[in-house]
Amino acid sequence: MGLAIDSRLTKFGGMSNTFGEYLRITTWGESHGPGIGVVIDGLPAGLPVTPQLLQRQLKRRRPGGALSSPRREPDEPQILSGVFEGRTLGTPLSIYIESSDVRSQDYESLADIYRPGHADFTTEARYGHRDPRGGGRASARETAARVAAGAIAAEFLRLEHGIEIVGWVSEVAGVRAPVDIDQLTVENVDQSLIRCPDAETSARFEAEIAQARDEGESLGGWVGVVARGVPAGWGDPVFGKMKAWLGLAMLSIPATVALEIGDGIAATERTGSDNNDAYDTNEEGVVIQRTNRSGGLQGGITSGAPIWMRVGFKPTSTIRKSQESVKKSGEVTTFSGTGRHDPCVLPRAVPIVESMLALVLADRLLARRAIPPFEGK
Amino acid sequence: MGLAIDSRLTKFGGMSNTFGEYLRITTWGESHGPGIGVVIDGLPAGLPVTPQLLQRQLKRRRPGGALSSPRREPDEPQILSGVFEGRTLGTPLSIYIESSDVRSQDYESLADIYRPGHADFTTEARYGHRDPRGGGRASARETAARVAAGAIAAEFLRLEHGIEIVGWVSEVAGVRAPVDIDQLTVENVDQSLIRCPDAETSARFEAEIAQARDEGESLGGWVGVVARGVPAGWGDPVFGKMKAWLGLAMLSIPATVALEIGDGIAATERTGSDNNDAYDTNEEGVVIQRTNRSGGLQGGITSGAPIWMRVGFKPTSTIRKSQESVKKSGEVTTFSGTGRHDPCVLPRAVPIVESMLALVLADRLLARRAIPPFEGK
Amino acid sequence: MGLAIDSRLTKFGGMSNTFGEYLRITTWGESHGPGIGVVIDGLPAGLPVTPQLLQRQLKRRRPGGALSSPRREPDEPQILSGVFEGRTLGTPLSIYIESSDVRSQDYESLADIYRPGHADFTTEARYGHRDPRGGGRASARETAARVAAGAIAAEFLRLEHGIEIVGWVSEVAGVRAPVDIDQLTVENVDQSLIRCPDAETSARFEAEIAQARDEGESLGGWVGVVARGVPAGWGDPVFGKMKAWLGLAMLSIPATVALEIGDGIAATERTGSDNNDAYDTNEEGVVIQRTNRSGGLQGGITSGAPIWMRVGFKPTSTIRKSQESVKKSGEVTTFSGTGRHDPCVLPRAVPIVESMLALVLADRLLARRAIPPFEGK
Amino acid sequence: MGLAIDSRLTKFGGMSNTFGEYLRITTWGESHGPGIGVVIDGLPAGLPVTPQLLQRQLKRRRPGGALSSPRREPDEPQILSGVFEGRTLGTPLSIYIESSDVRSQDYESLADIYRPGHADFTTEARYGHRDPRGGGRASARETAARVAAGAIAAEFLRLEHGIEIVGWVSEVAGVRAPVDIDQLTVENVDQSLIRCPDAETSARFEAEIAQARDEGESLGGWVGVVARGVPAGWGDPVFGKMKAWLGLAMLSIPATVALEIGDGIAATERTGSDNNDAYDTNEEGVVIQRTNRSGGLQGGITSGAPIWMRVGFKPTSTIRKSQESVKKSGEVTTFSGTGRHDPCVLPRAVPIVESMLALVLADRLLARRAIPPFEGK
Repeated sequence: MGLAIDSRLTKFGGMSNTFGEYLRITTWGESHGPGIGVVIDGLPAGLPVTPQLLQRQLKRRRPGGALSSPRREPDEPQILSGVFEGRTLGTPLSIYIESSDVRSQDYESLADIYRPGHADFTTEARYGHRDPRGGGRASARETAARVAAGAIAAEFLRLEHGIEIVGWVSEVAGVRAPVDIDQLTVENVDQSLIRCPDAETSARFEAEIAQARDEGESLGGWVGVVARGVPAGWGDPVFGKMKAWLGLAMLSIPATVALEIGDGIAATERTGSDNNDAYDTNEEGVVIQRTNRSGGLQGGITSGAPIWMRVGFKPTSTIRKSQESVKKSGEVTTFSGTGRHDPCVLPRAVPIVESMLALVLADRLLARRAIPPFEGK
Repeated sequence: MGLAIDSRLTKFGGMSNTFGEYLRITTWGESHGPGIGVVIDGLPAGLPVTPQLLQRQLKRRRPGGALSSPRREPDEPQILSGVFEGRTLGTPLSIYIESSDVRSQDYESLADIYRPGHADFTTEARYGHRDPRGGGRASARETAARVAAGAIAAEFLRLEHGIEIVGWVSEVAGVRAPVDIDQLTVENVDQSLIRCPDAETSARFEAEIAQARDEGESLGGWVGVVARGVPAGWGDPVFGKMKAWLGLAMLSIPATVALEIGDGIAATERTGSDNNDAYDTNEEGVVIQRTNRSGGLQGGITSGAPIWMRVGFKPTSTIRKSQESVKKSGEVTTFSGTGRHDPCVLPRAVPIVESMLALVLADRLLARRAIPPFEGK
Repeated sequence: MGLAIDSRLTKFGGMSNTFGEYLRITTWGESHGPGIGVVIDGLPAGLPVTPQLLQRQLKRRRPGGALSSPRREPDEPQILSGVFEGRTLGTPLSIYIESSDVRSQDYESLADIYRPGHADFTTEARYGHRDPRGGGRASARETAARVAAGAIAAEFLRLEHGIEIVGWVSEVAGVRAPVDIDQLTVENVDQSLIRCPDAETSARFEAEIAQARDEGESLGGWVGVVARGVPAGWGDPVFGKMKAWLGLAMLSIPATVALEIGDGIAATERTGSDNNDAYDTNEEGVVIQRTNRSGGLQGGITSGAPIWMRVGFKPTSTIRKSQESVKKSGEVTTFSGTGRHDPCVLPRAVPIVESMLALVLADRLLARRAIPPFEGK
Repeated sequence: MGLAIDSRLTKFGGMSNTFGEYLRITTWGESHGPGIGVVIDGLPAGLPVTPQLLQRQLKRRRPGGALSSPRREPDEPQILSGVFEGRTLGTPLSIYIESSDVRSQDYESLADIYRPGHADFTTEARYGHRDPRGGGRASARETAARVAAGAIAAEFLRLEHGIEIVGWVSEVAGVRAPVDIDQLTVENVDQSLIRCPDAETSARFEAEIAQARDEGESLGGWVGVVARGVPAGWGDPVFGKMKAWLGLAMLSIPATVALEIGDGIAATERTGSDNNDAYDTNEEGVVIQRTNRSGGLQGGITSGAPIWMRVGFKPTSTIRKSQESVKKSGEVTTFSGTGRHDPCVLPRAVPIVESMLALVLADRLLARRAIPPFEGK
């Protein structure tokens, strides 16, 4: 049973590159390979999709600006299948994004070091080796594929239900920006270099991040996201709860460490009568929530109120400041990050969080379609 | 296309009753039906499993005690397949738990009211109707099936790798108990009626919960959980990250509203150099983390340090205090909860959180077995 | 990594007990355990389901009659969840069938022998051991769970679309019964002890099977099945073709060895102009096929013509006639089957084939609902 | 609920573009789009993979030769991810094949006609419209992506277990070629233009096909395939049987209409004692089958004997001969195929059948790894 075979032939792999149940995306591509891509299966037909739709959102994720990594990626998405004359065909939609600014030499000196906070050591523990050219699949570069797919999911939600999804930088270094989730727009958010829609807080965040950058440090914080216009009745019981899918989606983003649905963290300190969102009816007789502490979800199913949540990110692991670590050999060493990294990932994380929310919502929309509501009596 | 058919024949359903990729559980049963159960597929053979193993953990989830719901469920699990002479066969293991104390009349007066914080309204929005006998699948009763399955998963992890999983009540009403996650045992935890291992804080929690009960109120808080002994290298890149699976698992538990991996919430306020867990080697030359702010995960893959996290629960939605809500008719009404409910679910949530962690870990153990580490050079 | 653990603790399992994508059944239970069962997830709500509906079809699968195994199983199905007042709730439907006539001693003398044509040797090669009490999961007893689930799927199809599914014994020992698939009914089929609707051929089959039984031999043959009333447009491209799902479904039945879609075997010998089913329109202007050589499928998608196919079964592996084989020790031995076995499984296979067809059709019906046809222009 | 939206926005899609449980391929691309591709997830790392490996097999599928379609596709596969320095990384492997000879005008005159035997009408019934440029996803062009993936799966099987997979044209127009499945090689097969390894029968097939071509007709037949070297114990019980997976795989190939496992069709006419493969032991004490009527499978699990089966194809639906059909308008019309089509698809189907067998075997190899055999006592 088995021949003498090449000793480098081995046995690992991974099936973890697909997300979604009804609307499924499969992302591929290493951080320093020729390009990355995504195949989207289960998309409705007839949906207008253009490279421009993708580019608009990809541009928001792209590195650039005084406060982000100097890596330059034009991120020109090519649509290779699934679209004919600007409309989806209902067949798998394949997107390819060529990588142009790949300088793997930046990383070479670190190939031997287990960088703190990175997946270097754990990837080797998992797979026995890692792509020596960079972060491989653990790199944030993979998220560009999610953003391309998410742009299509968001357009689907917008056209079908008028759903608007807006993310923002909510908190940096313990300071939280005041935001009106019922009114917030992408335009409000993008007026700020840092994607914080409150001008005063935005200025404060900018200053904090600039200082961290100058000190060779990094900062974390919270990204908020809201979806307005989602009808009541999306999400499924037990393991298909909307909040459970959001947990899976958001915690699959690199550097995420916490999340709350609505203002869940505050809810843990309230009493029941202070926390429950009372129901009422509006002028049209539609059942509404008077408040929205729950983030628009009850029992994991949407109530018609805006869905909102916050996702916590740790500070960027790579910093210029000297840190101690160990080499593969076990030898303790010190090193400083010299690659192209953001002192704070939050501004670029905004479109990623929006994309994962759009993908979850579109998936649950299709789930509800498969299994429509009771119409009998 | 279609005959004239009975008008009650309708079109909804749901595929959301299965959890796991390699080790899969499918739970079934309504809160007020004849019983509930779970089918476990993908279990290793040869594993010692007895009804007693299940009962020990089920007993910890069971209502009872001065501070919990007076509903009585003996919860005697019957193993109907998959075990022969006390060992698993590798075939599907089917567990049945008969329901004995089902008083659906308790709920009947509420059949017309959308209770705040409950899934009544959203379930109707999703499915057009709901089980008039009680919470149906949204009831916490469903979690007994998860606890039975989780007990087996935990035993598998214990026997294969000596893994210990311990949950505890970490925080009530904003007060956090000091806990040493490296030493904590189930025995420490179960000495406290409230499952808080710190005696002083436990007494304080008890007093708070007793007061809430007396006032017709409810409280939320945080459950902590730790798994010690998980080897480095479990979890998968991209969408198969250990933290992503934990997000899905924990947020599928009723009443959960937030979570943090390690002390993720605090991490959002730290700088990179304060937050990174430095690597070192121990006396045996094994790579270790000097600190464990990350909860034992880097890049979503285990590092060998204890995995730990906290899960936030909202206060119980049902309270005796009078609340306003609306009826199906749209009419505004007031009502008071009279059913059998806990003023604080946290003590009973501890084995549920432990079970979901065990199920995720066992699933990722099998994932790693399918795809073992690189052995070449 | 790992403790010294009990040497019987081992590492196999299996995830192969679930069938279907949108409508999913998970079967459980060993042939000689306390009972078997099935959990059905994804079912529409409001569907009328009673134990009688299941029993009617289970009775047709049950051993009995001069030409079948003398094993007696009352097969009383209990519905443990998912149904309230005779209608499905849309929650998982759990069915339990207790086993009453389990005589495992019948099998004990064979525990050491690899019976030809059985899964004894291959199960040991797969899993290292096997359930010593009987066929375990490879036993035809498992198919009772499929028949219970299939009865519900068939009722769903009947009520929603007036679909009729009829199976029959088509061929024994190379002789084929003439059958009019457009008119055939279950009543026609069940008039025959052997489930062959053509009286003359039925008598011939009975004689052949009786002779095989008397000689300690067994016979195989073909079961045909037709579904009338399936609308055009069910089935999906590429890997979701209706014929591909039928291949998976039918070849998962024990003893199946061949299948043809429509009269596929004859089609392999025709020319294109002789084989293509010409399209035409009927009086109502609906597109129809003039002929139905293709079994109602074009490109793996239904055309509106009856779906029909035939499934080939090998002769029952267990025979009274003495056969040579080897023991576990490698020693060559002779033995004769003495258990309770059918000389020809075809009559009892009819409801199993019908059930798998019903499950596939109901699954594809839900698939089409999830993803409805183009309505734009 | 919903805005006034563009009337072309619609609601179909499809999730049917992924195959496999552990080793999963997702194919994409329309027949007349810019190219096609496949993403392979779950592949072992360290496997040597080059574009040449893929090209060798793609070349065998490619149109060309006097007896096949004059469509020319260089089919140069580009590997866009998952491979570094000629070895797989264990990350998703993305393959792109640009389409160069796309003449969609060939098809335009047929856009209104439902061609008999094609998916034109049924695709419209399923989706409401179809890609006007050609066969879309139903086109055989999609199978090039499977062949690229299958070449990698076959290499994996060859290197790990020395498994050899050989397909051949077994039967045309009712005449069957004698073949020794224990000795047959790809070289034997490819000596024949028609891929029939028996020289005399090959000549006869060539003559038959040439005559069909000259008469504007087409022929079907059977492709055989054998895998030698597969160890005993692959495949899983119940719905994971090897034969069930083969049914799904083979009947997902365009134009397939029948299949038999081993000589399953003949088995339906034998008695049990004539059909059972007796077990014996060889000189090394290994359990073997004396005969191999069962195609190397017992209970759906491999026995160690060669796996073999035959797949039946209908005659090519497109023929030059004039046929009657209907237009979208319902009007009856006559037409003749003028596109680039093969009078007999069998020679080109050989590598497709081999590829699907390789993909099924590699998937079951990984399944067995996830869940290794019992090692206790």
